[in-house]
Amino acid sequence: MGDYRFEAKYTVRHEIMGKWLSNLYMAAGMGREDSEICADTMVCADLRGVYSHGAMRAPIYAQRMREGGTSPVNQPAVAMDFQAVAVMDGKNAMGQVVSYRAMELAISKADKFGIGCVASRGSNHCGMLSYYSDMAQKKDMFGMAFTVGSANFMAPWGGLDARVGNNPYSVAFPAGKTAPVNLDMANSMVARGKVIIAAKTGTSIPDTWMLDAHGNPTTDPNEGLKGTGRPVGDYKGFGVAYVFGILSAMLSGAAFGDEIRDLYASIGNGQNLGQTMIAIDISKFVDLKRFKDRIDESAAYVKSSRKKPNAEIFTPGEPEYLNEARQRVDGIGYPMEVIRDLGKISGEFGIEALVKL
Amino acid sequence: MGDYRFEAKYTVRHEIMGKWLSNLYMAAGMGREDSEICADTMVCADLRGVYSHGAMRAPIYAQRMREGGTSPVNQPAVAMDFQAVAVMDGKNAMGQVVSYRAMELAISKADKFGIGCVASRGSNHCGMLSYYSDMAQKKDMFGMAFTVGSANFMAPWGGLDARVGNNPYSVAFPAGKTAPVNLDMANSMVARGKVIIAAKTGTSIPDTWMLDAHGNPTTDPNEGLKGTGRPVGDYKGFGVAYVFGILSAMLSGAAFGDEIRDLYASIGNGQNLGQTMIAIDISKFVDLKRFKDRIDESAAYVKSSRKKPNAEIFTPGEPEYLNEARQRVDGIGYPMEVIRDLGKISGEFGIEALVKL
Repeated sequence: MGDYRFEAKYTVRHEIMGKWLSNLYMAAGMGREDSEICADTMVCADLRGVYSHGAMRAPIYAQRMREGGTSPVNQPAVAMDFQAVAVMDGKNAMGQVVSYRAMELAISKADKFGIGCVASRGSNHCGMLSYYSDMAQKKDMFGMAFTVGSANFMAPWGGLDARVGNNPYSVAFPAGKTAPVNLDMANSMVARGKVIIAAKTGTSIPDTWMLDAHGNPTTDPNEGLKGTGRPVGDYKGFGVAYVFGILSAMLSGAAFGDEIRDLYASIGNGQNLGQTMIAIDISKFVDLKRFKDRIDESAAYVKSSRKKPNAEIFTPGEPEYLNEARQRVDGIGYPMEVIRDLGKISGEFGIEALVKL
Repeated sequence: MGDYRFEAKYTVRHEIMGKWLSNLYMAAGMGREDSEICADTMVCADLRGVYSHGAMRAPIYAQRMREGGTSPVNQPAVAMDFQAVAVMDGKNAMGQVVSYRAMELAISKADKFGIGCVASRGSNHCGMLSYYSDMAQKKDMFGMAFTVGSANFMAPWGGLDARVGNNPYSVAFPAGKTAPVNLDMANSMVARGKVIIAAKTGTSIPDTWMLDAHGNPTTDPNEGLKGTGRPVGDYKGFGVAYVFGILSAMLSGAAFGDEIRDLYASIGNGQNLGQTMIAIDISKFVDLKRFKDRIDESAAYVKSSRKKPNAEIFTPGEPEYLNEARQRVDGIGYPMEVIRDLGKISGEFGIEALVKL
C-alpha cells in the first residue's frame, strides 16, 4: 500500500464515494447495513488522508467476498459473555463489521461496568483502527483498539526472519474545544509500501526504515526488501508488536504468527484475525467537563514548546482530524491510480461507475 | 540513573537487601507491611538487573519521607468505586504502596467482572512498573500498568522544549513452560542517565538517542543534554507518551505536564503522580491451559528465526526473568557506588549497616 497523500489528482465527494462503496459491497452479496458500515470506515480513512485504509482496498475486499475468502452475509456472534467482557466469533465476516460490533458491545459494557473489553476471532483485515477507538471517543470514553496482522514484516530483535506483523493499535479520547485525540500507529518505522515505491523510483531510504538480509540498517530499498522492517525503537517495537499481537489474538483464540492467512496471498480463505476492543467510561472516574478542559490545557501546554523552523506541533490524530474537516467540505482528493482501479472493479461487479474517465 | 548492569562489584543476597531496605523505611516512619511492599519491589528490580529502580533509589525515597515530601504513614483510599473500575487517592503515600494497592484492587475486580481498571492520583514515583503487571500475570491475568512521569525529557515532535515525560508502561501475561512475558518500556530511546554517563566519560552516543537544542540528532552527549530525549519512533513515541500519560493521570485527576513535581527537584512536596492499573482475567475468555500452550508456541515460533551472528532472541522480559532466576541463587551483584551510598544512608537513619566496607 503506497502513501499517495501528496499525489492527489481526482476529487470525489465523500457521500458519492460512500454510496459507490456500499453499492459495490451489496453487489458482492452484503446486506445494506453491513455494506454501509464497511463503506463508512473506508470513507472516513480517505477523509483523514489515510488512503492506505480507504477505497483503494475495495477491490481486494470485493474479490475476497466473491472468492469465498470473506463471508458477505455472516453475522458476528457473541461466543462468550461475562459481565464486562466478551468474546465475539466474527464468523469470517468483513473485519470492519466484526470490529464495529465488538466496539459497540465494549461501549455498552463500559456504560454498565465502567470498562468493557471484547476480543474477536474469526475476523479479517479491519482497515483503519482509529475508526473503532473513535466510536468510544464520540461517546466520551477512552477507546483502545488492537489488531494482529500477517507475521510477514518484522523480525524479533536479533533475528533475520519476519516473525510478527507490525500489529497496529489505536488510543482515542475526547477533548473540549481542541481536536479529539487519536493515536493510530503500527510498530514498524514505516509501511512496506513506502519502501516498494522507493525501490521503483530508485531513491534511497533513511537507514531507520529497514534492516537488510543480515539484520543491518540499510539505505538501499532493494536490500531492505530482502530483509525486514525496522521496529519502532528497535527491540522495544518488536516487544510491543508481540505483546499487543497476543492481546489482539489470544483472548479470543484467533490466529497468531504463521497461522494467519494474508489478505492478498490467500484470497479464498478467511484470515482468522483477532481484534481486541476496550472502552473506558471517563464520566465514571472523573467529572467529564473537567476532564475535557484538562485535555485542552494539556494540548495547549504541549504546543507552548518552541518549534523547529517550519515545524508545526500536533497532538496525536490532529492532522487527520484537520484533513477530515477540510475534505468533508472540499471533497476527497484521490490519486488517479485509485480511481482507475475502482473503475475496473465497477465493471467486474456490474455496478454503476464511480466517475466517467 | 545509570545502567550499571555490567559493572557489578559487590554481591548481596536478596533477603539481606530486602531486610535492610525494610529497616530503612521503618526508620523513616513506615509501618512494617508498607515497608516490606516497598522493599520487595526494589529487590525485585535489582534481581532482574533493573538497578535503576532498585536499592539505588532508597536514599531519595528515605530523604523524601524525612522531608515530608512523601508520607510514610498515609494509606491509599478508594475515592470512587463503580463495578469494574475505581479511583484511588494515594494520599501522598509511596508510589509503590499506591500502585500495589491499585493493582490488588484491579485484580479482584477482574476476578468478578473479567476486567478491572483502577486509576490513582496523589501517588509518587512507583519504581519498576513490571512489578505491578506481574502481580496480575502471577494470577493468570493480563496485567497492564501505566504511569506518568516528570515532563522534563521529551519534546513534542517538531518542538524544542520538553513537554512530556518518557511515561513508561508495562504489559505482562503468563506462559506455560517458557518465561512469563513482561514488556516494560519507556517511550524515549534511552534514559537520560546513560547520556550523563557518556558525557562524563567523554564518549559519543548513537544519533538515535538525543536531539540537540535545535531539535536535530546528535552524537555529542553534551549537545544532547542541552536538548531533549529522542522518542521511540520519533513522532510515534511522542504520541504514545502523550496518550498513555493522559491515561495514567487524567482518569483520577492526577497532575500532568508542568503540574508534576520532580522526584529529585522538589523533595519536600508530594508529586501527585497518576498510575493506572488494568487486569484482564484470561480464564473468563478462553481455556487457560490452551492459552499458555499457545504462548509457548508463539515464543518458539519467534525464536525459530535465523539469528544475527552472536545474537540471542528473547521474548519481552525474558532476559530480566533469567537474571532474576540466577541472582536469586547467586546473590545480586551491585555496583560499588550503590553500596557506598547505602552505607551513608544507614548512618543518617541510624540503622545497622548493610555491609562492612
